Amino acid sequence: MAVKTRDRILDRALELFNSQGERAITTNHIAADLGISPGNLYYHFRNKDEIILALFQRLIDSIAVKITVPKDRPLNFQDKRMFLEVALAGMWEFRFIYRDVHGVMNRSRELRAAYQQFARLSLQTLERIIVGLVSSGYMDVPEQEIEALALNNFMVLSSWQEWVTAAFLEENEVLPKKLFRRAFYQILLMDRPFVCEVAKESFAELEAEYFVPMSILKR
Amino acid sequence: MAVKTRDRILDRALELFNSQGERAITTNHIAADLGISPGNLYYHFRNKDEIILALFQRLIDSIAVKITVPKDRPLNFQDKRMFLEVALAGMWEFRFIYRDVHGVMNRSRELRAAYQQFARLSLQTLERIIVGLVSSGYMDVPEQEIEALALNNFMVLSSWQEWVTAAFLEENEVLPKKLFRRAFYQILLMDRPFVCEVAKESFAELEAEYFVPMSILKR
Repeated sequence: MAVKTRDRILDRALELFNSQGERAITTNHIAADLGISPGNLYYHFRNKDEIILALFQRLIDSIAVKITVPKDRPLNFQDKRMFLEVALAGMWEFRFIYRDVHGVMNRSRELRAAYQQFARLSLQTLERIIVGLVSSGYMDVPEQEIEALALNNFMVLSSWQEWVTAAFLEENEVLPKKLFRRAFYQILLMDRPFVCEVAKESFAELEAEYFVPMSILKR
Repeated sequence: MAVKTRDRILDRALELFNSQGERAITTNHIAADLGISPGNLYYHFRNKDEIILALFQRLIDSIAVKITVPKDRPLNFQDKRMFLEVALAGMWEFRFIYRDVHGVMNRSRELRAAYQQFARLSLQTLERIIVGLVSSGYMDVPEQEIEALALNNFMVLSSWQEWVTAAFLEENEVLPKKLFRRAFYQILLMDRPFVCEVAKESFAELEAEYFVPMSILKR
């Protein structure tokens, strides 16, 4: 069965936004690239904001399905790894969004609302994972610090690409995929002090696995 | 002696950018507000990018003068407080920049270059403060983790306003000044695990001083 035109538009828009930057791509570019008329595209999406909103919704849906905090067993650090891997994969697949979160989110009221809902959900999930790891005896975090730790986790996760790009890269240069993973290491560094003795060894393995030297950026 | 026109333009531009957002303000607005002709403004600045660059240079100069890491005595946490207070004051005074770092920096090659130089200098200074605190026996940070800790410090510091704005505020709503200070608390949370026994008490006082509940945002 043929892929629906609406999905074809979204697939191609995502490719073009990721490879050439969202600002450089208009609805006309997308239509021309697909070999369809602008009118056909406008039948599905009134403007670029609606395409971006639909792509953002795809990101949310794909992450939401994959991230479930198990309730039927004690949590361990593999659950945190799972969360971060899913988040990193989503942020790579939809990387045009995370190159300029502020700019993209301010395009429309709907985008901003969707982003804020997503941010709250992510923070809640991060908090629930911390609470779960405390319950299972793998972490020791004072209750009044759980929110602050989750905030630091999420801020580094969602700002990493944009921040490294702004601070270190040339214009139009993109963050190497390898260095996406370092966001995870930066988060582990914040979590480590709260890790209990019993989990320290497996935690250190996790840290080693995600360490990527910043020096791969230097020329 | 009368303030030079160039400085009057910069003063007024800063006020307008901070209060109404840089995107909403053109060079014509600035000239009209000052009661000077656009031609007079263009004599001093060819375009808005040049005004923003000059303001960013002011920020760098004001911070650079005030932040010196002492070399003639051991460091303590008051040196870190000093650095962060100066940085926070500068980020408040020039808050239009930190509401949209990515957007502002991508306006011109010169702005991007200035920002990157400033980011590297800030990171180096943060690293030197960590090294100083290790030398004086107040912190214990493995050498291979100093860079990552300084990165986390600086990322939270420079992304805080933009990130909280994107995740929690309505469009055109601005971060309460009080909540700027919480960036410092978020940073202290990352540093705390590395604080040595001898400094723990004074460090806890510092944390209490900068804690501001996120709930002041909720309605």
